[in-house]
Amino acid sequence: MSGEVKTDGLPLSPLGTAAGPEPELLCIFGTGDLGRSLGQRLLQTGYRVVYGSRRPHSCGPVPQGAQVRSHEAASQSARLVFICVHREHYDFLQTLAPQLKGKVLVDLSNNLKKDIYPEANAVYLQRLVPGAAVVKGLNTLSAWTLQNGPLAGKQVFLCGDSAEAKQAVSDVATRLSLSVVDRGSLSAARELEDFPLRLFPEWRLPLRVALGLTAFFFFYLLIRDVIYAYVEKGNDISFRIMVSLANKVFPIVSLIMLSLCYLPGVLASFFQLYRGTKYRCFPDWLDRWMLCRKQLGLVALGFAFLHAIYTFIIPIRYAVRHKLISLVVDEMKNNKSTPFDFDKTEAWATDSFYVMGILGFFLYVLLGLSSLPSVGSALSWREFTFIQSKLGHLTLVICTVHGYIYGWNKFLRPSTYKWWTPPGYMLCLVVPSIVLVLKLLLLLPCVDRTVTRIRQGWERTEPGEERDEIKATNL
Amino acid sequence: MSGEVKTDGLPLSPLGTAAGPEPELLCIFGTGDLGRSLGQRLLQTGYRVVYGSRRPHSCGPVPQGAQVRSHEAASQSARLVFICVHREHYDFLQTLAPQLKGKVLVDLSNNLKKDIYPEANAVYLQRLVPGAAVVKGLNTLSAWTLQNGPLAGKQVFLCGDSAEAKQAVSDVATRLSLSVVDRGSLSAARELEDFPLRLFPEWRLPLRVALGLTAFFFFYLLIRDVIYAYVEKGNDISFRIMVSLANKVFPIVSLIMLSLCYLPGVLASFFQLYRGTKYRCFPDWLDRWMLCRKQLGLVALGFAFLHAIYTFIIPIRYAVRHKLISLVVDEMKNNKSTPFDFDKTEAWATDSFYVMGILGFFLYVLLGLSSLPSVGSALSWREFTFIQSKLGHLTLVICTVHGYIYGWNKFLRPSTYKWWTPPGYMLCLVVPSIVLVLKLLLLLPCVDRTVTRIRQGWERTEPGEERDEIKATNL
Amino acid sequence: MSGEVKTDGLPLSPLGTAAGPEPELLCIFGTGDLGRSLGQRLLQTGYRVVYGSRRPHSCGPVPQGAQVRSHEAASQSARLVFICVHREHYDFLQTLAPQLKGKVLVDLSNNLKKDIYPEANAVYLQRLVPGAAVVKGLNTLSAWTLQNGPLAGKQVFLCGDSAEAKQAVSDVATRLSLSVVDRGSLSAARELEDFPLRLFPEWRLPLRVALGLTAFFFFYLLIRDVIYAYVEKGNDISFRIMVSLANKVFPIVSLIMLSLCYLPGVLASFFQLYRGTKYRCFPDWLDRWMLCRKQLGLVALGFAFLHAIYTFIIPIRYAVRHKLISLVVDEMKNNKSTPFDFDKTEAWATDSFYVMGILGFFLYVLLGLSSLPSVGSALSWREFTFIQSKLGHLTLVICTVHGYIYGWNKFLRPSTYKWWTPPGYMLCLVVPSIVLVLKLLLLLPCVDRTVTRIRQGWERTEPGEERDEIKATNL
Repeated sequence: MSGEVKTDGLPLSPLGTAAGPEPELLCIFGTGDLGRSLGQRLLQTGYRVVYGSRRPHSCGPVPQGAQVRSHEAASQSARLVFICVHREHYDFLQTLAPQLKGKVLVDLSNNLKKDIYPEANAVYLQRLVPGAAVVKGLNTLSAWTLQNGPLAGKQVFLCGDSAEAKQAVSDVATRLSLSVVDRGSLSAARELEDFPLRLFPEWRLPLRVALGLTAFFFFYLLIRDVIYAYVEKGNDISFRIMVSLANKVFPIVSLIMLSLCYLPGVLASFFQLYRGTKYRCFPDWLDRWMLCRKQLGLVALGFAFLHAIYTFIIPIRYAVRHKLISLVVDEMKNNKSTPFDFDKTEAWATDSFYVMGILGFFLYVLLGLSSLPSVGSALSWREFTFIQSKLGHLTLVICTVHGYIYGWNKFLRPSTYKWWTPPGYMLCLVVPSIVLVLKLLLLLPCVDRTVTRIRQGWERTEPGEERDEIKATNL
Repeated sequence: MSGEVKTDGLPLSPLGTAAGPEPELLCIFGTGDLGRSLGQRLLQTGYRVVYGSRRPHSCGPVPQGAQVRSHEAASQSARLVFICVHREHYDFLQTLAPQLKGKVLVDLSNNLKKDIYPEANAVYLQRLVPGAAVVKGLNTLSAWTLQNGPLAGKQVFLCGDSAEAKQAVSDVATRLSLSVVDRGSLSAARELEDFPLRLFPEWRLPLRVALGLTAFFFFYLLIRDVIYAYVEKGNDISFRIMVSLANKVFPIVSLIMLSLCYLPGVLASFFQLYRGTKYRCFPDWLDRWMLCRKQLGLVALGFAFLHAIYTFIIPIRYAVRHKLISLVVDEMKNNKSTPFDFDKTEAWATDSFYVMGILGFFLYVLLGLSSLPSVGSALSWREFTFIQSKLGHLTLVICTVHGYIYGWNKFLRPSTYKWWTPPGYMLCLVVPSIVLVLKLLLLLPCVDRTVTRIRQGWERTEPGEERDEIKATNL
Repeated sequence: MSGEVKTDGLPLSPLGTAAGPEPELLCIFGTGDLGRSLGQRLLQTGYRVVYGSRRPHSCGPVPQGAQVRSHEAASQSARLVFICVHREHYDFLQTLAPQLKGKVLVDLSNNLKKDIYPEANAVYLQRLVPGAAVVKGLNTLSAWTLQNGPLAGKQVFLCGDSAEAKQAVSDVATRLSLSVVDRGSLSAARELEDFPLRLFPEWRLPLRVALGLTAFFFFYLLIRDVIYAYVEKGNDISFRIMVSLANKVFPIVSLIMLSLCYLPGVLASFFQLYRGTKYRCFPDWLDRWMLCRKQLGLVALGFAFLHAIYTFIIPIRYAVRHKLISLVVDEMKNNKSTPFDFDKTEAWATDSFYVMGILGFFLYVLLGLSSLPSVGSALSWREFTFIQSKLGHLTLVICTVHGYIYGWNKFLRPSTYKWWTPPGYMLCLVVPSIVLVLKLLLLLPCVDRTVTRIRQGWERTEPGEERDEIKATNL
């Protein structure tokens, strides 16, 4: 293969890192989907691959270029052994323990559920083969990704007790263009094994909040609108549930979620102001809240999107067109000279209402776009802060104004308060208004100066001048 | 330059990989756009660069810091020579063969069309300079990308007969932060040279299907709606082609494309059930179909997007407003007491129809967003499966219900079947209904259990117990 | 830790790059947010970390696993020292100069504003500690990113006078999965320090152009529509400002911005045609214009998006519904037999107008999606060119036709030219029409052939045949 390269001029050898004349041999135990896909990738990247199998002659197809041998023979010639076998069948490895002594065993296994075994698979493996260096990792890669996907820059995790063994696995992963994160000793194996079982953990809280708010406001408005009309006026307007009611619930939930997305940041500032330092941890609930702000905002954007589309289809609805036609015909029957007066204030108010809604939605979408991973990572820290903080609060202001204009002339009408309950849009303005008032307080020059100093490391309570000085010195 | 570093304490040398005091010298043949851009990047990354030119003194500008020499002199001092010259002018390299002996020649050339030469450029180059190790690669990088783009994580391909030579080129590419994929021996060069000539190959089949369906349904509805009205009633409603007709064709094509996106997965399951194993390949057509599911779905989303916008502008259309006004005026002339009765069933049905459409579109958009490369790569395998399979089938269900509600009270009306042909929406419900029925069958507990076992490696037909056991053992 | 690995079979040592039995020790000066986050990442990646502090016993919390010592002791045992201290406090480093001799000092500092110091922080540091090798870099990473973000593939910049020192820092950064770009000698430090202070520099010109155009057309249309109606007819239609006027301004600005996005490419071709070569630089203004084409296009898309939503909400506006009702009632009062004639030409024209708008918007969105970093980087050069050039010009054609249809029957009406001024849509058609005419000229076979030859390196003016030949030879 490389026979044609005769290094007459300058020797080629000092060029590469591992550049021996023959590529390294890696061993894979297991010829299932994962084992075969992994082997194929390794072969493509320039490694030689040997499979270990209990029955080397009847194990099914392996990638072209790979060998199949018995477990003993396969592991003998390689330094790294990738274990692509279900944990349930690890026992055969115990009998191989002498052959595997000194080898690096990479445990790629996953479980079908959390906590079905008392110890992590990799820990169990280490117990079976105490003479080998077990590294847990690469288990977030599926057979499909290994076969088809671009691996470039994909993050994988490693853990293990031997730094040398981890380095060896990390080198292979790096040549597969994976990006490796070392998670420490083998005790982190359980955490790594739980990764592929995750199902949107960071979305759960925001979705639960959204669901709760949606349910509450749906029933609240159902009672106020539909049931009230039926009980008090004998009017069956239940057909309004599908669109009119939903189109009241969605913007309400969206606005509350958006303000919930900016509330924790404001609360954190007040915590720091009150404590006079940034070096004390926030309460646990605030920390968790702050970590799901992005998801809160995106769920809010989803509701805003639904609100927008629900609004666009209003005029083609049967009920709306019926009402419009009835209005005209009634006007004609009553034979007024002008059908109804053009109210300029009304025109200004409704148009402003729509414009605020449109601009708010536009900024919402901008915020959403900037939270796309590839867009966000192209922004500098200052740009990201500008978008998420300045534009974010502007969006909140505009959407809140949108809500206020909606009810501008209804606040004082008694008919607004059916059964002595406030309408939904009033309830939904409470949280955003609080957030905006608190934010305004933080923007007062004197408060802002103190917060900035605290963020730069200054502390009000005197922990000795020394420490104060150190804080102000460091980046 | 590095004279200031005096290694008093600990020596610096064992730190880096190649850390000689002087960076490596690379040679580039050709001072065109590509040659200059490549040289500039290599200089930025810390290499030294020398250009080889036939006329070193009149070759135009080269990047600051690079030297220009004759071909012979330039290649002498470097180990790697990047050939940035059109294949048509390779003959001069034959005369340089003695000087290039033992060098690594990187062929970056591309052709303007496929198959214009009997052999790949790199193979031709290897024939001209048999003593050198030719590596084909990096040819997917354009001069523009090299100059302006971020290279980080960009995938490039290499192939060549010498593993050592490939490793040397791979090291350079890795330092340019490229992500390298080894495609094997030089016989893959043709494939690599065809890469930059690709123009959406994976989109062709879906776009052809979309075009075919659009054309068919356009003419089908043209005949049923416009020509029928003209022939049978003498009514010229050809103005409806632009919006009304298009807004019937788009949702039909969208729904069919979406179901075509989920049909191959269902078919694959039935193939596996029928054969009782997952280890036999699918027919070729099914494989190709499955590989373009993402594109099928995205084209469907495009049509759904057009359908949504076409729907939003309905009420501002001249014809619609004219019809509305005529309706009122006619009602008044006929002097009925109520213009037209409010039909609650109609209100419920149309509102449900719209709501299904909106929710379907919302889920459609979510699916589309999750197929963005940066979003998709942030998902775990389980999350990706959840979105594409669970949410995907839910979208199909909702959109199919959207279609059924549209025609709920028209199925039994004779006037629906103009010229004894079924309306378009009925035709478009056929494929989705079949997909959903088949999917339901697969979800039956007994069937589901068998499919799951097959997917885990179990085989019904007995290939010897051994193999069966091995399959179930491996990941 | 690594005691369990006994290398009986084959030795593990030649596997890794740096694979000593103990991971490398890195020193960090400064225990602020950045220092601590950096240390944590380095520990996660497998390094050992020691902090240097003036008061090692009262410096606050450091990441688990790191040590804290005095500056002297900490720097002694490490080769690399990361300086995470504000520039204002660098003076203490001068006193440490003897201990830091021969070390690599990585300056991560940033300033709060541009140009507040006469020399870059890193240059100042080098002056304070002349015996050390100062490397400026990694300063674009924030403490937050280091703690939470995925670093994979993130681009960081380095500069410094010692190639060896840069290589050492680059190795550390690569192991953090960062992608390193070498920006040359320490004189580039100022540029690197200005990076984190950037706030959308490439968006400024497009946003200013958009703002200027918006302001101009807003006042132009305000005068022509609202003020004209008030002065000439005493009609107060100021309520139209919010929606009607804005919905005229947005599409006008959007179309002009889109054509401005394609104008520089056309101009560049004419420059090349006129000069007969591609080897002379474009004027500076054209270069800057070409570099912000993407931003021009995205701002245009933003305005198109607003235009679309403004259009969708037209029918639910109070003023529009009022006008519709008034129209009907007036018709009835005047007691015509048919309320108003159905004008088929009008129906065709308005529907075509809407369809062009919808298709244009659809293509606009496609263009926008393909400019997302993750989508764009997955495209081949030919695919990217196809989308941005072919689809882009098609979008411009369709949107221009959209504009022409709007005014198709108003060009010759005197009432169109209020106060002898042309309406806004006429003005906005000027630039797109010019761009399209110029583009058409370039597509003429004879012109196209010359441009293609010039782009391939041919030159009309004779710079000696030699050079001509070289140009045509190289890629």
